[in-house]
Amino acid sequence: MDSLIDIRSNNKLSIAKETLETASKLIRRKIPRAGHLMTPRHLWIQSIPPKACDVVLTFTKTTDFRTIEWVKSQIVDESNGLGLLVNVQYHSSTDSYVFYLTAPFHVLMKAAQDVHLPKHIIGGGGLREFILSEMHTFEGIEECSDFFTMQERQSLILYVLNTRRVQNCTWLPELVESQPLITECISNGIIEHLFPVHENKTLIWLRIIWVKSFFSLQPLDRVCDYFGVKIAMYFAWIGHYTGSLIYPAIAYSAFWFGFGRRLDQWTEGVWFVVLAFMNVIWLTVYLETWKRYCAELAYRWATLDQRHQLLLQPRLEFKGQPRISPITGKPELWYPNWKRRLFSYFVSAPIIGLCLAVVFGLTIFQIKFQDWWDYYIEINEYTTYLSYIPKIMLALIIAVLDDIYSIIAVWLNDCENYRLDTEYENQLIIKVTLFQFVNSFLSLFYIAFYLQDQERLRTQLAVLLITRQLMRNIKESALPYILEQIRFAKISFDLFGALTPSDEPAKPNGERVVSQPELECSMFKFDGTFSEHLEIFIQFGYVVMFSSAFPLAALCALLNNLIEIRSDAFKLCYIYQRPFAQRIKDIGMWQNIMEVMGFIAVLVNCALIGLSGQVHRLLPNMTAIQTVLLIVALEHIMLAFRCALSCLIPDVPQWIATEMAKAEYIRREAASSKSP
Amino acid sequence: MDSLIDIRSNNKLSIAKETLETASKLIRRKIPRAGHLMTPRHLWIQSIPPKACDVVLTFTKTTDFRTIEWVKSQIVDESNGLGLLVNVQYHSSTDSYVFYLTAPFHVLMKAAQDVHLPKHIIGGGGLREFILSEMHTFEGIEECSDFFTMQERQSLILYVLNTRRVQNCTWLPELVESQPLITECISNGIIEHLFPVHENKTLIWLRIIWVKSFFSLQPLDRVCDYFGVKIAMYFAWIGHYTGSLIYPAIAYSAFWFGFGRRLDQWTEGVWFVVLAFMNVIWLTVYLETWKRYCAELAYRWATLDQRHQLLLQPRLEFKGQPRISPITGKPELWYPNWKRRLFSYFVSAPIIGLCLAVVFGLTIFQIKFQDWWDYYIEINEYTTYLSYIPKIMLALIIAVLDDIYSIIAVWLNDCENYRLDTEYENQLIIKVTLFQFVNSFLSLFYIAFYLQDQERLRTQLAVLLITRQLMRNIKESALPYILEQIRFAKISFDLFGALTPSDEPAKPNGERVVSQPELECSMFKFDGTFSEHLEIFIQFGYVVMFSSAFPLAALCALLNNLIEIRSDAFKLCYIYQRPFAQRIKDIGMWQNIMEVMGFIAVLVNCALIGLSGQVHRLLPNMTAIQTVLLIVALEHIMLAFRCALSCLIPDVPQWIATEMAKAEYIRREAASSKSP
Repeated sequence: MDSLIDIRSNNKLSIAKETLETASKLIRRKIPRAGHLMTPRHLWIQSIPPKACDVVLTFTKTTDFRTIEWVKSQIVDESNGLGLLVNVQYHSSTDSYVFYLTAPFHVLMKAAQDVHLPKHIIGGGGLREFILSEMHTFEGIEECSDFFTMQERQSLILYVLNTRRVQNCTWLPELVESQPLITECISNGIIEHLFPVHENKTLIWLRIIWVKSFFSLQPLDRVCDYFGVKIAMYFAWIGHYTGSLIYPAIAYSAFWFGFGRRLDQWTEGVWFVVLAFMNVIWLTVYLETWKRYCAELAYRWATLDQRHQLLLQPRLEFKGQPRISPITGKPELWYPNWKRRLFSYFVSAPIIGLCLAVVFGLTIFQIKFQDWWDYYIEINEYTTYLSYIPKIMLALIIAVLDDIYSIIAVWLNDCENYRLDTEYENQLIIKVTLFQFVNSFLSLFYIAFYLQDQERLRTQLAVLLITRQLMRNIKESALPYILEQIRFAKISFDLFGALTPSDEPAKPNGERVVSQPELECSMFKFDGTFSEHLEIFIQFGYVVMFSSAFPLAALCALLNNLIEIRSDAFKLCYIYQRPFAQRIKDIGMWQNIMEVMGFIAVLVNCALIGLSGQVHRLLPNMTAIQTVLLIVALEHIMLAFRCALSCLIPDVPQWIATEMAKAEYIRREAASSKSP
Repeated sequence: MDSLIDIRSNNKLSIAKETLETASKLIRRKIPRAGHLMTPRHLWIQSIPPKACDVVLTFTKTTDFRTIEWVKSQIVDESNGLGLLVNVQYHSSTDSYVFYLTAPFHVLMKAAQDVHLPKHIIGGGGLREFILSEMHTFEGIEECSDFFTMQERQSLILYVLNTRRVQNCTWLPELVESQPLITECISNGIIEHLFPVHENKTLIWLRIIWVKSFFSLQPLDRVCDYFGVKIAMYFAWIGHYTGSLIYPAIAYSAFWFGFGRRLDQWTEGVWFVVLAFMNVIWLTVYLETWKRYCAELAYRWATLDQRHQLLLQPRLEFKGQPRISPITGKPELWYPNWKRRLFSYFVSAPIIGLCLAVVFGLTIFQIKFQDWWDYYIEINEYTTYLSYIPKIMLALIIAVLDDIYSIIAVWLNDCENYRLDTEYENQLIIKVTLFQFVNSFLSLFYIAFYLQDQERLRTQLAVLLITRQLMRNIKESALPYILEQIRFAKISFDLFGALTPSDEPAKPNGERVVSQPELECSMFKFDGTFSEHLEIFIQFGYVVMFSSAFPLAALCALLNNLIEIRSDAFKLCYIYQRPFAQRIKDIGMWQNIMEVMGFIAVLVNCALIGLSGQVHRLLPNMTAIQTVLLIVALEHIMLAFRCALSCLIPDVPQWIATEMAKAEYIRREAASSKSP
């Protein structure tokens, strides 16, 4: 399997190389002259890759020289020998100053040791956390420039930047002393962007072998190398989910299109129940295989062997009392658990409950109102377009509520003051999905269980599944792409279209150039995979809960996801600034809420079977109570079966468990052969 | 809390000391003479504590000298400098030869390093696994005789014995070459017993401060020191469970005796539901607090920080192909997981299913047959004593089936060939409890849900809870005690009653003595805490599932357990040979099956509420279907609540998590500052 991917991507790579060479030949033939209006595409190809620039830091237009000088002094600070290299530039397109940042090798190595970056050791001994004192045991250490990949360099520079605290800055009263420098500057409007630059060569490869190779497997290892583990993990997850969708898509579609229609009612009823059971099996196997695959990926990407969470670096925004850590004996910040719990039980929980109640009430009200409105229109014989008024109103209100709730959720989460980024994100996931669950599924539950209108449920599902996802792809890929093209066109026009006096350097032969970082400043900032995860999670809910009502759900989801993968890849490779890499070992809380969704799905499926009247058709002699009891029994069997199956399938493949045991063995041996 | 226990046990200890001194004064005054028939109690006090004897190994009567000499040569084998010290003795009471075993200090230290025994390091630095090369960092290493406690010495000697393999033994063809020596000799009838000797002083203390101090807390740390972690953990578990039973015992008894009787039906119905809910909360809180308490105990007893299971020593009985371990690089035995799984899915599971079906069928048949029989007797006006015939027959059949099933379960478990003792025991727990569940609860389920006879259910429960436990205490404590007293009396008579010519040494002044190990040979062998755990688990099932039908269940269980604790302690301190200590970190699978029982209990409670007609009394206007749906909803809410509560309560207290993080930090730091 792996080798297959390698062969495929190698093929793609050689094609990519050729394309690249052809492209550069073409460019050399028609070097753009001043005054020549270029298309955004040409602008990109013609841009100059920066020398010695890994990370770009841009200041807002209004920032004065003194502040810029001060920030520079803080960053290059050589007092501890760990300064970064700063190259100050001026971007004419935004009329602002920027720093092109990079770091000397010794600073990178020190940072790599601090963040316990795993690197390969000489002789194929696998990965080991980098240590300065034993740097010569690591592979490739002689080649200073190649030892760390660009992505690693960028993460390490970010780490160094984040260690800088505001110090002796009385003349800028808005900056709080001893808080992290960069976050303070960003929140006070001094720094505008901080992003790592793209690496053109790899990016063009990725565009070819990932974005445009629609029918081949994703080059996950390369994505991981370029964008980091977190983004690669998201794509691995959606890829694995899409692959798993093939089974229910085939089973349900076969049932829907051909097979089911030719059956008599009794056999159809049996099939219905069999499919529901298979759905539970599929669901469980899917969740378990993902856990195993995820462990494999995390092992491959060297994030599986995480330290105990009390040993990890706290978030930058983490607040607490300074104290000496009882674990490491070093100074650290401390925030007691009980305070966090008190807040989340007595403030967060009631507020979230209230929000859920509001959206609950509104949804029910809208459905009731819609019914009354439709009836009113029909009676008065008004035009049917009026029927959309309540729908549009609800959509608007929900959108506003959604935004308000997001703000509340983030605020509550901030107040709860979690120590780790993963904890913070996990709690935010819980808060947001609770709301989205009610928001997305309540009207369906209402139709299915209160109105018991199977036909309306089916229509609603089809509309939601197809339009919602289509709209989203347009909103998230096409729209930003067009916007960005317009921005680039504007830059292009500004630079070359009109001969305005400008400060940017001109080449001896009179050509005007634009640097690649300058272009990237105009790109959108990628704000994480949270909303993508959420969207797929909601879709997962549609599929696992309502497949029995709308058997084509799995097929719709499958087709959508095939597009979604490439459209997300497109966004990353074409529209967004490169994000900083993040090292995670799994998808965190998303896994848990999918498990919970799995349980809810069993209940909903059984209830739908009960309401569909299939059981009554199968066993016409049963009383109503017996039918209910039978369905409840069926549900309990499915739940028990699901639990048993989860327990029987080990979460981690045997060979990974062996490798983890080996790592622990090495640590224990080392610890016991060392004096205290 | 801890200090309270200490003060209490110190008080007890000083009392114990005084009693001990008085006792020894008394003894000195009337030293028994030859020919004086002593009571077993005196026999015990007068017995000579062995010099240099930690572990006793006795041969069967039929074993010849050559074999005994050969076994001795294997045990004292000095070729690797790790021989034990053997003192050969003759026991006239059993007419057999015995070895009194002990080990030189250097052998013990080597063994302690091999088993990673945690010992205190100098300067209060906590526990650390013992290492020979750094022996001087451990506290009390100067005092060779006191560095290891007697219990540790005994475990280490057992470990050394277990490393001995059958070698060059062609003249005893029944022994399989290169199998463990001791197990081969035991299974071939060469060795009869292998047990560690009691330590009289501590044992007498324990009798006073543990067995006889009915109303004080158990001195768990001392029990752990003397009997090892596994036994202490069992007593901690039953103690914690009994303590937790106070809440439901009070709540339900109050409801039953006074409060409930004076209420009108409506309020009674509400209380019924409230109690069921409280039962779920209690259950969850009990299970979670035990997990936390267990982690604390395991930390205190230095078993919490277990190695990865692939790094632990395999069971003695583990079979497999020899190979070089990919983890440690040392030779090991290897048995592939898939073989084990294949066997357990395709052999174990069907056989167990069959057994369950048989006991299921038999129980149902007996109930039906009993009804028919009672009817037949009534019609023919026979004496009512005849009514007991089917009951007695079933009891006999079940007892026989129980034995057969135990044999099958152990055989299947042996075939599955688990690598670790804990795995082996966990799987055996699953097999045995499945059978016992059907055996113990099926007739109750039948009465409750099929016959729906609440009155009969109540009677049956009362009978089961009270008689079953009373019978068991008599069978397991009183009976063996009496048997043992008779054996001791026989020894006493043989030795001192009749002046038979014997080979045992006579003291210069003509007194005949019996050594303590000789007496202990006549004691029963303690065969683990499995059956005690099982019994309490079944009782737990009665309490959590049927408290709503028979509210006094918790009170009965509480009273029974108060006696059970001391009666189990009595068995260990009076009746049984001392067991070898075992190091475990929790109660293993018992925890899991109690969790499962917790879920089943929610279902059963809800079903009982439904059948009791309380809901109908509360809400008389509901239709039958609505009532069923309401109860199903209630059940789901309870299940969700239980899951949520389990997730909200951390399994390990914060301070233990901190300590574990610290241990990991030390290991990681050591590993990273050491060259590969």
